Amino acid sequence: MIIDCHGHYTTAPRQHEGWRGEQIEAYKAGKPPPPRPRITDDEIRESIANGQLKVQRERGTDLTIFSPRASGMGHHIGDESVSLEWSQVCNDLIARVVSLFPQNFVGVCQLPQSPGVPPKNATAELKRCVKMGFIGCNLNPDPSGGYFNAPPLTDKWWYPFYEKMVELDVPAMIHVSGCCNPAMHTTGSYYLNADTMAFMQLILSDLFKDFPTLKLIIPHGGGAVPFHWGRFRGIALNNGRPELDEIIKNNIFFDTCVYHQPGINLLAEVVPADNILFASEMVGAVKGIDPKSGHYFDDTKRYIDKSPRLDDAARKKIFEGNARRVFSRLKTKVTATA
Amino acid sequence: MIIDCHGHYTTAPRQHEGWRGEQIEAYKAGKPPPPRPRITDDEIRESIANGQLKVQRERGTDLTIFSPRASGMGHHIGDESVSLEWSQVCNDLIARVVSLFPQNFVGVCQLPQSPGVPPKNATAELKRCVKMGFIGCNLNPDPSGGYFNAPPLTDKWWYPFYEKMVELDVPAMIHVSGCCNPAMHTTGSYYLNADTMAFMQLILSDLFKDFPTLKLIIPHGGGAVPFHWGRFRGIALNNGRPELDEIIKNNIFFDTCVYHQPGINLLAEVVPADNILFASEMVGAVKGIDPKSGHYFDDTKRYIDKSPRLDDAARKKIFEGNARRVFSRLKTKVTATA
Repeated sequence: MIIDCHGHYTTAPRQHEGWRGEQIEAYKAGKPPPPRPRITDDEIRESIANGQLKVQRERGTDLTIFSPRASGMGHHIGDESVSLEWSQVCNDLIARVVSLFPQNFVGVCQLPQSPGVPPKNATAELKRCVKMGFIGCNLNPDPSGGYFNAPPLTDKWWYPFYEKMVELDVPAMIHVSGCCNPAMHTTGSYYLNADTMAFMQLILSDLFKDFPTLKLIIPHGGGAVPFHWGRFRGIALNNGRPELDEIIKNNIFFDTCVYHQPGINLLAEVVPADNILFASEMVGAVKGIDPKSGHYFDDTKRYIDKSPRLDDAARKKIFEGNARRVFSRLKTKVTATA
Repeated sequence: MIIDCHGHYTTAPRQHEGWRGEQIEAYKAGKPPPPRPRITDDEIRESIANGQLKVQRERGTDLTIFSPRASGMGHHIGDESVSLEWSQVCNDLIARVVSLFPQNFVGVCQLPQSPGVPPKNATAELKRCVKMGFIGCNLNPDPSGGYFNAPPLTDKWWYPFYEKMVELDVPAMIHVSGCCNPAMHTTGSYYLNADTMAFMQLILSDLFKDFPTLKLIIPHGGGAVPFHWGRFRGIALNNGRPELDEIIKNNIFFDTCVYHQPGINLLAEVVPADNILFASEMVGAVKGIDPKSGHYFDDTKRYIDKSPRLDDAARKKIFEGNARRVFSRLKTKVTATA
């Protein structure tokens, strides 16, 4: 079984984003939000059958851990109530996708974060989603949308949220949203910079002493981290910390959203196979076919299949075993729907 | 000849940083700045002979392109006049190092940038330094010290400064300073994030159509860029831009401050050898010996010597040829002092 731990609903029917636009306009005009969008089951089926499901089948993957469009979360837009209603609308839509395609998708939720609002305010929506069968969440380390002015992930500010994650036994993918800072490009630099920032915050902290079972996934292959593994090792060791392998062991995981063979080879060379989760982020950040390889840039399964650094046991962990370990609720879910 | 294009004077006599502390205190108290620090030639000789020069000799490198301590530039501290005087003090000290060790060091200057202040105001100090024999500058893309709120490097805001660079025929290394944002670690995430941000700004722009001879060095191996070469290629192609090799050809260069063998191997595999400049950033960001290799993390010459991706011709470019091409004034300088 091949589990893709990082997919967003980027192909949602147009009413969905249309409602978001109306919601923002209403907020700006000081009016109540519009009635929630009407989307039929057939419209959802079509958007998935011609989108993510089609690609799953073409590439030979089985199950996508599926969340709302990351760049659309827009935590910096409006206020907490705007963020809450948008999160509910997005998560409810994911729940419907999962109910229509229970063999192929399982839900991860968007959180109603907002700049300056304590993360503990997002616990109710997390709980609601887990009750609906969701198995994780996307946690935004920079709700400002590009100015990195939230407390580090190791600050007590985040602790009440981590407590709820641990209680519900769900991991978080650390994932920012669309960038409103003109200095950064959402998918080109902002995502990667947030990943690198998050890793560096974590490795010099005692967060995992306080939360030994907390599991955090750093997407996009960990940003700059594997390429600079020696730099991070050196900084950790100079600060009296253990080797990175030891620091990340039970708590930090990287996905495989790295869109070329040499990048995946490096990831597999420096990061222990136990800490890598298969992912493609399709249909997502980088569309189109690589003219040099003749294959889609984001067809990451090919790179893993071909990586000389991995044996079959490592591939099995990356494709399936690690996802089952990190997303503990996946087992119940998959067994229940199978 | 082996030219290290990225070294900072991190071992300056203590009076130097001492004066900086007094300068900041005076600024806060609304008092005039203290008299400039007195440092003897012998103190400078000792700090270099036991520092960078010793390491140069141990590692078998010949010439370091040398600039003031990057994390000490502190453009976010004080105002434009504070930044100008500190830059002059720092650059004058580099000029003295170079005059004492003309065979081993050549100067690159710090710029008197300040948040919100037009970069063109830094042209006078650049000109002054070039007259003293400096061959380049360090340009800070985020004078705020961690909030990334300056216009992108492709904005007309920077153009008057680029015009002066082109006129004087000097390149810039794009290098931020110490981070005052608690979400980021200066050498662990902030430096790398600025590198990644800068590259992404450049590749979708027409900057090099406006300045065909402008040369920019992105340090620390280009941040996250080589690891995500496929991602950046895909984004560029999707935006109707050419292949990255073509975009960077005459204008964008990466250094080799990547502190492990797999990282250098990747860099050498994806980035054309013509666009890589040898650098170690010693004595700098990562001190200490890698317990796994038994060698200093920042002894990057070893990784280049051992990289299976490089032949002798490529190594010669990386160690010497490219630096001579990018730092056009180096030729005059080295000939003059030889």
